[in-house]
Amino acid sequence: MAKAVFYHAGCKVCVSAEQMVLDNLDPSKAAVEIVHLGEQRNRIAEAEGAGVQSVPALVIDGNVFHINFGASLEDVKKG
Amino acid sequence: MAKAVFYHAGCKVCVSAEQMVLDNLDPSKAAVEIVHLGEQRNRIAEAEGAGVQSVPALVIDGNVFHINFGASLEDVKKG
Repeated sequence: MAKAVFYHAGCKVCVSAEQMVLDNLDPSKAAVEIVHLGEQRNRIAEAEGAGVQSVPALVIDGNVFHINFGASLEDVKKG
Repeated sequence: MAKAVFYHAGCKVCVSAEQMVLDNLDPSKAAVEIVHLGEQRNRIAEAEGAGVQSVPALVIDGNVFHINFGASLEDVKKG
């Protein structure tokens, strides 16, 4: 089972990408954790360490997939 | 069942995104067609019409999700 984390910051782009991920990822293949970096600011460093540069981003087994472009991680840091 | 088309052009970024899509999308939720725009150049206009601006991109039920950034569609057109 792959470990997947979907990082977002609540932006419009993020919400549609989150819905796509939740609607279409196979729960028997990947367990997805949703992290709202605007609310869980303590996890911004974790996202950065995983290689996330913008949100929304899906990290699956260490591979980072930036989806469309909602905001840069620098902007998320500024809050 | 959602209709999904994964457009790519064979670049390194495309290959890892394609693998992620194939490994993790739920086949009972979305039927994914893989289109290599470098080989199926006749489908570039279709991708553009769907709103694809760069590859790789996943189009699900008309929603476009650009994944990371492999190449712009303009570059794909130039071949």
